Amino acid sequence: MKYGFGVDLGGTTVKLAFLNTDGKMLHKWEIPTRTECGGAQILPDIADAVLGYIAQEKLAREDILGIGIGVPGPVDQGGVAVVCDNLGWGRTDVKGILQKLTGLPVEVGNDANMAALGESWMGSGAGCEDLVMVTLGTGVGGGIILGGKPLCGANGAAGEIGHLVLERNETEFCNCGKRGCAEQYCSATGVVRLAKRFGRDYPTCKAVFDAAAAGDGDAQAILEQFYAYLAELTANVCTMLNPRQIIIGGGVSKAGQVILDGVGRHLGKFIYHASTDVEIKLASLGNDAGAYGAFKLICG
Amino acid sequence: MKYGFGVDLGGTTVKLAFLNTDGKMLHKWEIPTRTECGGAQILPDIADAVLGYIAQEKLAREDILGIGIGVPGPVDQGGVAVVCDNLGWGRTDVKGILQKLTGLPVEVGNDANMAALGESWMGSGAGCEDLVMVTLGTGVGGGIILGGKPLCGANGAAGEIGHLVLERNETEFCNCGKRGCAEQYCSATGVVRLAKRFGRDYPTCKAVFDAAAAGDGDAQAILEQFYAYLAELTANVCTMLNPRQIIIGGGVSKAGQVILDGVGRHLGKFIYHASTDVEIKLASLGNDAGAYGAFKLICG
Repeated sequence: MKYGFGVDLGGTTVKLAFLNTDGKMLHKWEIPTRTECGGAQILPDIADAVLGYIAQEKLAREDILGIGIGVPGPVDQGGVAVVCDNLGWGRTDVKGILQKLTGLPVEVGNDANMAALGESWMGSGAGCEDLVMVTLGTGVGGGIILGGKPLCGANGAAGEIGHLVLERNETEFCNCGKRGCAEQYCSATGVVRLAKRFGRDYPTCKAVFDAAAAGDGDAQAILEQFYAYLAELTANVCTMLNPRQIIIGGGVSKAGQVILDGVGRHLGKFIYHASTDVEIKLASLGNDAGAYGAFKLICG
Repeated sequence: MKYGFGVDLGGTTVKLAFLNTDGKMLHKWEIPTRTECGGAQILPDIADAVLGYIAQEKLAREDILGIGIGVPGPVDQGGVAVVCDNLGWGRTDVKGILQKLTGLPVEVGNDANMAALGESWMGSGAGCEDLVMVTLGTGVGGGIILGGKPLCGANGAAGEIGHLVLERNETEFCNCGKRGCAEQYCSATGVVRLAKRFGRDYPTCKAVFDAAAAGDGDAQAILEQFYAYLAELTANVCTMLNPRQIIIGGGVSKAGQVILDGVGRHLGKFIYHASTDVEIKLASLGNDAGAYGAFKLICG
């Protein structure tokens, strides 16, 4: 049995996990992400955490496959992060630096791709090598797994499905500078925005779901719009890629089965007939998905 | 040097070609597609054509790699055509039947994927292993090449980009039964339909292009709508897959550089910033693309 580390590097915390090749997470912990000084301390902190754990547990180096790490931005094929705005990073050779700091093999991926890889390995997509994960959080992320491998794209930017245009006549701008992106309707902030358009002011996305569950007709109508947009997004992903499964994760997905039911009510209007047998599921690994996937990247 | 056959099976004619592994097309010819009796004669006709050519040219069997064939419908991973409406075919084991009839190895792909593979091998995408071909004809087809291989999808239906929804409020139906598909705006029939909505009746898509070139302001305005939809389609493909190149082919693309210029005027509104360096090109192999790609499938 071999072991290794899966690291999910976020803008606030770094999630670290120690796993074995059977996919058992033996230990997990977090450290803060120090973004000051252009994020210069982030990789040294991760190296210290990993080396500290190895020393503390008296692990044999030859049993350690290495470190897989997911970073919040595009990654090129050489393991270089092209840019990570919320870490303060410009172009950063994550693979080279972390290998040098730890003496261990390192593989680097985009965080959304790592979450998708994690779900396809040990989560609700286990056993499925062709799936797309749709992450509904503050924004909308996506990770495409084909033949068991993440699709990276020419600039490491494949799977940015939150920026598919769903509403060509939208007047408000997305954070990315375009108008009509899926993220403007299908994210937590998107749901609150849809509510405002409906003349209702809910503090959070969860408040809209809670109100709808309690019988608030406006909240139900707002969510029905959200479901229609999410169905359109899902359908367009399926029409282009014809995956076996769509895995819906992220904070918004905690609303649970109502999301699958809601998408199901609208999917038929948007999905191409050859893809209607796609399985749509909720993610099951929660915040651990990225660490599972990052480790999977190193253990192959 | 090895040789083989590339076959592009269409609803009216079968295009056959004899090529070498350098990508030189040494001979090409056509036979009619006999769709009567559920298309039962189609594969025997192709076998006769191939075997007849081998006999006539006194070719040595050991120099022949086999037959690659593109068919107009989804193909599963075992070389079985799932359904080909315009051939009269239900589920048809193209690979098994054609191998038995000819004694040669056979590989089978979807025709749009084969055209994309052809362009990525010997056409305007030569040297690029990650591209998407957009075929603008009577309908809109697509073929996705990743790492030099066509992406097939779970049911052989990946790349059906003509059925991405671009206009969620469309009232007219696409042939596929949905509303707002790219094909309703970006195909030859789509351009004529856009013209009708503009209150103008042009007999063909080419007539709209000719009128626009001659200074007809309505035709120019209609084409500007077409360019915007095509830019949106192209952008959504790039946002999802981040390919290196987009190759635009099919009958409508014969209009030439004006299409690239038109798409260029609208692309910025729709494309995600990480994908803006995509190269958009016109296809160069014309009707031969499918035969080139089909042969590439057999020569690997």
